Amino acid sequence: MSKNTRPLSAVLLVHCADRKGLVALITDFLYKNQGNILYLDQHVDAERGVFFMRIEWEMSGFALPRNSVKAVFKSEIADRLDLDFSIHFTDERPGIAIFVSKLPHCLYDLLSSSRSGHWPAEVRLVISNHETLRPVAESFNIPFHHIPVTKESKAEAEKKQLKLLKELDIELIVLARYMQIVSQGFISNYVNKIINIHHSFLPAFPGARPYHSAFERGVKIIGATSHYVTAELDAGPIIEQDIVRVTHRDSVSELVRKGRELEKTVLTRALWNHINRKVLVYDNRTIVFE
Amino acid sequence: MSKNTRPLSAVLLVHCADRKGLVALITDFLYKNQGNILYLDQHVDAERGVFFMRIEWEMSGFALPRNSVKAVFKSEIADRLDLDFSIHFTDERPGIAIFVSKLPHCLYDLLSSSRSGHWPAEVRLVISNHETLRPVAESFNIPFHHIPVTKESKAEAEKKQLKLLKELDIELIVLARYMQIVSQGFISNYVNKIINIHHSFLPAFPGARPYHSAFERGVKIIGATSHYVTAELDAGPIIEQDIVRVTHRDSVSELVRKGRELEKTVLTRALWNHINRKVLVYDNRTIVFE
Amino acid sequence: MSKNTRPLSAVLLVHCADRKGLVALITDFLYKNQGNILYLDQHVDAERGVFFMRIEWEMSGFALPRNSVKAVFKSEIADRLDLDFSIHFTDERPGIAIFVSKLPHCLYDLLSSSRSGHWPAEVRLVISNHETLRPVAESFNIPFHHIPVTKESKAEAEKKQLKLLKELDIELIVLARYMQIVSQGFISNYVNKIINIHHSFLPAFPGARPYHSAFERGVKIIGATSHYVTAELDAGPIIEQDIVRVTHRDSVSELVRKGRELEKTVLTRALWNHINRKVLVYDNRTIVFE
Amino acid sequence: MSKNTRPLSAVLLVHCADRKGLVALITDFLYKNQGNILYLDQHVDAERGVFFMRIEWEMSGFALPRNSVKAVFKSEIADRLDLDFSIHFTDERPGIAIFVSKLPHCLYDLLSSSRSGHWPAEVRLVISNHETLRPVAESFNIPFHHIPVTKESKAEAEKKQLKLLKELDIELIVLARYMQIVSQGFISNYVNKIINIHHSFLPAFPGARPYHSAFERGVKIIGATSHYVTAELDAGPIIEQDIVRVTHRDSVSELVRKGRELEKTVLTRALWNHINRKVLVYDNRTIVFE
Repeated sequence: MSKNTRPLSAVLLVHCADRKGLVALITDFLYKNQGNILYLDQHVDAERGVFFMRIEWEMSGFALPRNSVKAVFKSEIADRLDLDFSIHFTDERPGIAIFVSKLPHCLYDLLSSSRSGHWPAEVRLVISNHETLRPVAESFNIPFHHIPVTKESKAEAEKKQLKLLKELDIELIVLARYMQIVSQGFISNYVNKIINIHHSFLPAFPGARPYHSAFERGVKIIGATSHYVTAELDAGPIIEQDIVRVTHRDSVSELVRKGRELEKTVLTRALWNHINRKVLVYDNRTIVFE
Repeated sequence: MSKNTRPLSAVLLVHCADRKGLVALITDFLYKNQGNILYLDQHVDAERGVFFMRIEWEMSGFALPRNSVKAVFKSEIADRLDLDFSIHFTDERPGIAIFVSKLPHCLYDLLSSSRSGHWPAEVRLVISNHETLRPVAESFNIPFHHIPVTKESKAEAEKKQLKLLKELDIELIVLARYMQIVSQGFISNYVNKIINIHHSFLPAFPGARPYHSAFERGVKIIGATSHYVTAELDAGPIIEQDIVRVTHRDSVSELVRKGRELEKTVLTRALWNHINRKVLVYDNRTIVFE
Repeated sequence: MSKNTRPLSAVLLVHCADRKGLVALITDFLYKNQGNILYLDQHVDAERGVFFMRIEWEMSGFALPRNSVKAVFKSEIADRLDLDFSIHFTDERPGIAIFVSKLPHCLYDLLSSSRSGHWPAEVRLVISNHETLRPVAESFNIPFHHIPVTKESKAEAEKKQLKLLKELDIELIVLARYMQIVSQGFISNYVNKIINIHHSFLPAFPGARPYHSAFERGVKIIGATSHYVTAELDAGPIIEQDIVRVTHRDSVSELVRKGRELEKTVLTRALWNHINRKVLVYDNRTIVFE
Repeated sequence: MSKNTRPLSAVLLVHCADRKGLVALITDFLYKNQGNILYLDQHVDAERGVFFMRIEWEMSGFALPRNSVKAVFKSEIADRLDLDFSIHFTDERPGIAIFVSKLPHCLYDLLSSSRSGHWPAEVRLVISNHETLRPVAESFNIPFHHIPVTKESKAEAEKKQLKLLKELDIELIVLARYMQIVSQGFISNYVNKIINIHHSFLPAFPGARPYHSAFERGVKIIGATSHYVTAELDAGPIIEQDIVRVTHRDSVSELVRKGRELEKTVLTRALWNHINRKVLVYDNRTIVFE
């Protein structure tokens, strides 16, 4: 089950205006080049007239060398059909940065999963507005950067963060219970590349203290939601949600405890789908090819 | 498993200001009268300082005759301790009225469950603002009353409804996808005795067309919520909720289809708990002693 | 949302030995004939080397007339590629027979869902070894046939059943808590066309009285399983499963009550997937293209 | 929410032959001693005639000093009524040992939860038959003991283990994917005090390689089960179970990945209930007073 033993494959993600023949034309391209398709997932948003596809094929035996696949696909197919596309290879290990504040549960879960789960990605740094979780990051040998954030220093802090992210070639940011609102300017550098975990079943209970609100409302189920961060708070495209039952016996602190287990699970699942190139975003909604 | 073969028992529901000795004093009353406790559930809302209890005990061998239990408990215990209480017997079959509009799924489910499920309750009539579901009610031999409701006729219609409810000694009203808002005046006759099914995971998506809103928001889970009806729309005490997973593949009509299965389940569970005297309401929240 | 307003489409189900180019060759066939693909789902069982696909495309604008689609696809594609395939049209209403004994909950749920759910199928008869549920079937205007089954009469009874099924052109049989074991000879007439609901989370608790066994074992979750019937009891390909939580408070009769809600949901979901041509069977497992 | 700020309370667990007056007599004892009941849970196993109760009350204001509560309760109540009972205080921090082999996911989750979750318990050592997870334990400053186990050395190894457990006053053992069968002799030292996590929905798929078996059977849901260890393999009293949906797309390694998330959650929940003294065991089943 080691990552290294999985044969190399390529993943193509596509979206474009829907029309006849898209699947035929794209799969024909692979067929002509001796590509063996492992997975093909396709979706048409009939209302908006948009076509989405994910294809994964084996590189072993494929006629095009790895470093020319993109260019050839672009000139032969994508330009002709006006496709929006990306191509990834399954041995890539894109860089991840995790942002945290003081709560350790998601950080521990991400770091331990990233180690044992054969992730096609690499956690390269942890950034926090507090020193609290430095020992956790360091016990996993992950560099930890403490960048305090106040109202006044926020712009400066984000500049420092972006510099670090660039230096380490970070592709994806995970907000693992990072208790700060990220500015629109910062987000524009990582569109659909910042994943947050919100501790409620969105759109119920956005904003602060959702467990308190859930308790007050007397719900019988609490949830957690992982979504891409957009300018509007807690309103970005949802990648994954899950729930757990609660009862009148559960105090707020019990909701917090039960919810934390859920936050870990939901964030890890969302991240897994993202790093395996299974998520497409369109019009503030996700297509998740599980 | 026939209802008739279950031995008769009594159910006491209590709430009052919390203080020491409540359980001891109440259970001692039962003990002195030879009561064999079958179930005892108790809850303290520490924040509000309120005590809740449900006790069920066998009437066989109980020293007090059925028709004097309430009076004796009141004078010996409840008045002394300033308890808010009710006592029910498990052979009672309180009358239920089901309000519907045009959608049959919840009505079918309630009527078939009420028949096969050994319910300690009796559906005595179906009221609708449309003729559509008359054949369904009549196939179960339940009287069906068509009472049209328009903006102008609403007050008059509710008067007619209340008259029917009184004539048939109805204790509980179930709004089984009844597409009308019930007036505050009407509700005041049935406080915590009108159960609604709302087709979303409240407080997300209150009001009309929640499946459309869920689709627009791109949620990965949809829900249904059964609650007591209060003056504020979709904001009453929640009795039961449940959810089902959806994906980007699900169109609005698929959400509707999946949701209907859920609505049936959630409404039936809520109703079951109510008619088995397992629900207490306090401060817009429910205590459900499952 | 009425069935009639959905535009006509065709569904192709395929399985065959996996090799390169299958998707390209098949989708190219549709493209050349002006077919607009609505859904395409594909799966490769890598271990067994088997390819599975479901494609749904619009018939409006398709170059081949409906009555020649199968023949042309067969000669141009299927024979050449040695495909195992079937083609269905979404306005077909294949005939269903429901087999029951005495328990009404699944029968009610199927009949009411089949009415309100815009099913692409038609319940044409109910067969039972008891008279008990005749009124239920007849309240839905579905013919009911009482065919008693004893050890001695079983062969004769199955002969009568098969005669009825043939007369009414039944394609699919649903065992809705039919408390009889169907003979291998009978099954051979309806391979992967008999759907059963088993009241446990298979493979746990096969056979009779699973709720009693679940209670004895002290499980915290009970389940229901819908599967195709094969010669080996409760061991056929699983189509759908779901579960509900239980506690130490739940007596066997509470498990039965909770389980019945589940049986209805699980059976209806399995059936929905089957009649929408979303299920393929291979090597005692199902591919469900949801 | 810090553990230290919760006021001290006492927990009484009782089981005995059911009879009239038990609740009254026991709660009266607390009332007479000025005990303020926080939680009372009671259950009667009607079939077996056994009574179970858990009461938690505040020690602040209680008339009996902490060190005499047990003795007084024993002489005044338990001996008279022939109760099987235990009394715990919420500031106790019983010692836990975690047994592991090579898989780190449960160990990480337990150690990080034990730190952030305000557990009323203390992980005092990790024992393993391999060196693999030493760095994990040591990064949490938990002593790690490598005790290899072979068929020949097993008796000797268990002796070493027991010696360590005794030295550190271990009350509870957690088998966190410990790939060894524990001998009956070992178990007899820790009856209902060894918690295992099994990676299937028991009683389905006991023994080795349950994910492979689940894949072979083609189930649509996989599960995890936490139970007390008894002499019969995977047949002990179940404390907690949960499930996750899978599809035909999930390979065995995907089942393993999804299942590991579940194993963590289920084991942590079971452990939480045990260390909060919410679990009673009787006749190979658990009563869990959640």
